[in-house]
Amino acid sequence: MKQVRVGIVGFGTVGQATADIISNHGDLIAQRSGVRLVVSAVCRRSGMQPQDVPAGARPLSNWKDLLRDPNIDVVVETMGGTGESLQLLRASLEQGKPIVTANKNLLAEHGDELFRLAAAHNLPIGFEASVAGGIPILRVIHESTAGDRLRSVHGILNGTANYILTQMETREIDFAEALAEAQKAGFAEADPSFDIDGQDARDKLCILARMAFEGRLNVARIPTYGIRHVRAIDIHSANRLDSTIRLVGSAEQTDAGLEVSVRPWLVSRRSMLAKVEGVNNAVFLVGDKIGTQMFYGRGAGGDATGSAVVSDLIEIARDFAAGQMNAKNIPGFLNSRELELSEAPRPVSWYLRLTVKDQRGIVARVAEVIARESINIDSLEQEPHLPKDRVSFVITVEPVSEPVIRRAVDTINSFEFMVEPVLLLRIDG
Amino acid sequence: MKQVRVGIVGFGTVGQATADIISNHGDLIAQRSGVRLVVSAVCRRSGMQPQDVPAGARPLSNWKDLLRDPNIDVVVETMGGTGESLQLLRASLEQGKPIVTANKNLLAEHGDELFRLAAAHNLPIGFEASVAGGIPILRVIHESTAGDRLRSVHGILNGTANYILTQMETREIDFAEALAEAQKAGFAEADPSFDIDGQDARDKLCILARMAFEGRLNVARIPTYGIRHVRAIDIHSANRLDSTIRLVGSAEQTDAGLEVSVRPWLVSRRSMLAKVEGVNNAVFLVGDKIGTQMFYGRGAGGDATGSAVVSDLIEIARDFAAGQMNAKNIPGFLNSRELELSEAPRPVSWYLRLTVKDQRGIVARVAEVIARESINIDSLEQEPHLPKDRVSFVITVEPVSEPVIRRAVDTINSFEFMVEPVLLLRIDG
Repeated sequence: MKQVRVGIVGFGTVGQATADIISNHGDLIAQRSGVRLVVSAVCRRSGMQPQDVPAGARPLSNWKDLLRDPNIDVVVETMGGTGESLQLLRASLEQGKPIVTANKNLLAEHGDELFRLAAAHNLPIGFEASVAGGIPILRVIHESTAGDRLRSVHGILNGTANYILTQMETREIDFAEALAEAQKAGFAEADPSFDIDGQDARDKLCILARMAFEGRLNVARIPTYGIRHVRAIDIHSANRLDSTIRLVGSAEQTDAGLEVSVRPWLVSRRSMLAKVEGVNNAVFLVGDKIGTQMFYGRGAGGDATGSAVVSDLIEIARDFAAGQMNAKNIPGFLNSRELELSEAPRPVSWYLRLTVKDQRGIVARVAEVIARESINIDSLEQEPHLPKDRVSFVITVEPVSEPVIRRAVDTINSFEFMVEPVLLLRIDG
Repeated sequence: MKQVRVGIVGFGTVGQATADIISNHGDLIAQRSGVRLVVSAVCRRSGMQPQDVPAGARPLSNWKDLLRDPNIDVVVETMGGTGESLQLLRASLEQGKPIVTANKNLLAEHGDELFRLAAAHNLPIGFEASVAGGIPILRVIHESTAGDRLRSVHGILNGTANYILTQMETREIDFAEALAEAQKAGFAEADPSFDIDGQDARDKLCILARMAFEGRLNVARIPTYGIRHVRAIDIHSANRLDSTIRLVGSAEQTDAGLEVSVRPWLVSRRSMLAKVEGVNNAVFLVGDKIGTQMFYGRGAGGDATGSAVVSDLIEIARDFAAGQMNAKNIPGFLNSRELELSEAPRPVSWYLRLTVKDQRGIVARVAEVIARESINIDSLEQEPHLPKDRVSFVITVEPVSEPVIRRAVDTINSFEFMVEPVLLLRIDG
């Protein structure tokens, strides 16, 4: 049976899980694909314990040595970052080696270059693992919706943020405590900003939007808000509204262009989004013909992400078996057309939470700002029994477009009684 | 650009939607696949109105004429049944033409023969549309979980039954009324037995189980119970238990073999299964590495099912473009290994609803039967204010294996005070 020799660079959680799956499920994979996957080299800068090195694999500490190894057919990149990983993948393709990567950050920033290079060398890039861990959402968009016109892709794309929000919700704790616990449980990194401030979700959304709408999208143009300023009181207020809070990445095609953002949403408890708990992810696709579909599963973790890497390796292995590499036509990264962003986002409802030093006339002044923008207040509630120097109240407003609500929020934020900026949540539905 | 000429046999809802998608999204498909799909013939026994025939397509009333047409590259079968459809697909493959079918019934009964024939001629069979409408679950199992060992596949596989159950739940109506309305709304056929008695879900489950566990499974061996005997009072009782009722097809690998069944389940309102409403479907996969994944969307209807047909056509068109047809290796239909069914199903909790003519001592006699089987009662409630000749009471019991609870139910059913047989629901979780 033909062997396909895999070199894994960045031998951390995902890299090790990938090697484990290849070793534990090797026979199963061989039976299904007609090819035997073999890990022939693993590379980690900081070196490895001998017991961590897969049987038969060369342990390396410099990825350049792995590229010089003639016994590597496919390069798996799980090192992260956008520096050396870019050099590695570039060099692999130039050597005629297909690549598999879990690196959303790299693809969001340098996907164009890599896919063009791959096309020039007629080589596939496996990147299923870069978005939503084990959920095969990229393959679904590429293959299963190929006959449809998609209108929207949105979902919960960051497991760490979702874990924190569900902990805040179920255990009624504040953000800082939930974050500390997530770090202790290994679900958040020492520097959690990439997850909690939304950049990780933004990178994934960028890839999803490019796949769904088939054009270029500069990741820096995606308005991104995280969950750092969500407080226990917001979860409490959400609950009163029979809702909860989720960090949602959303790209929606409208007549005025693409509406794209990463931000916390207030979602009804009855919604599917609310059902996505802990480190799970869920991606919704809406198409003209398919209607609404939802894909749910583990969004992170070695096993789930490693499974996605292995599914890409199997697809490439089948190409090896057939004796013919094929670059996939991924219009989202090969088209030069720019996705046009909407300048006139459609009206939606909003949740505003204000934290103020209590004094007379606050509600009147805030209500006046809102009225001046012709925004209708849907509900207003001040939490009772709060310390006078830190009073919260929550306003929900009827549908209005984002620039309008932002203008109102900017004015409110400038008031001297504001203790911290307004927390603004989009209300789903 | 290369053309792939499609012949559609059985030009009903799905066939027409397929033709519509090919015609409306032709440019999009050509751009993505490098091939232009063209509908060159459509066939319906009862003939067609001229305005229903796609531009450029030959209208036919006998599928044998379509097979004689040299201008057909791929045959799409949406006629249903297991008689002429089998002849058609057999003959198409023998002529060297790849096929796409939405016919779960045919695949559940004759899949072995068709896949062997396809393999012998090195031709692909597209069959995504046969299970769960537009949800690409078969492709996901085949491609995305290829590196994993699946443990369970289960879900809501019949949209008609799910529509009826959700109507009973939200509008508090009885089964007969919900069925009549579903028929009026076009969601149930004049003879609804295939949907409401579970055979449709059983055929789909058979295909799913064969895909997931890679062996033969005689569809007649799947224990199948429908929803015909679910009453308003059951929905009411479920509600009291913070639950609802769903028709679930389930295949689960255990140490003792495969546990497989189609039956109504009592599911917690908080579960994802409960969130699947109306004609939607949802399929859950559980794997060693991927954990639990869920795939949700429209399970029926022309557009969703037509989209799945077209996604298969695009995959075949890509083979045409590459100048090389490829039979897919589908172990579930090519392996001769039989899936072994468990003789010792694991204990689960059960819901029993009894309808009796009220008389003294009923509860004692029923409780005695249950105690004799060493089953622990978890709750017992008799609905108040019911007519004496038709009193319902509901018992839930702690986990016990199916043969044991069936024995108890059989004994209870033999009692002279029983107005109708016990309704038995599996309790999820």
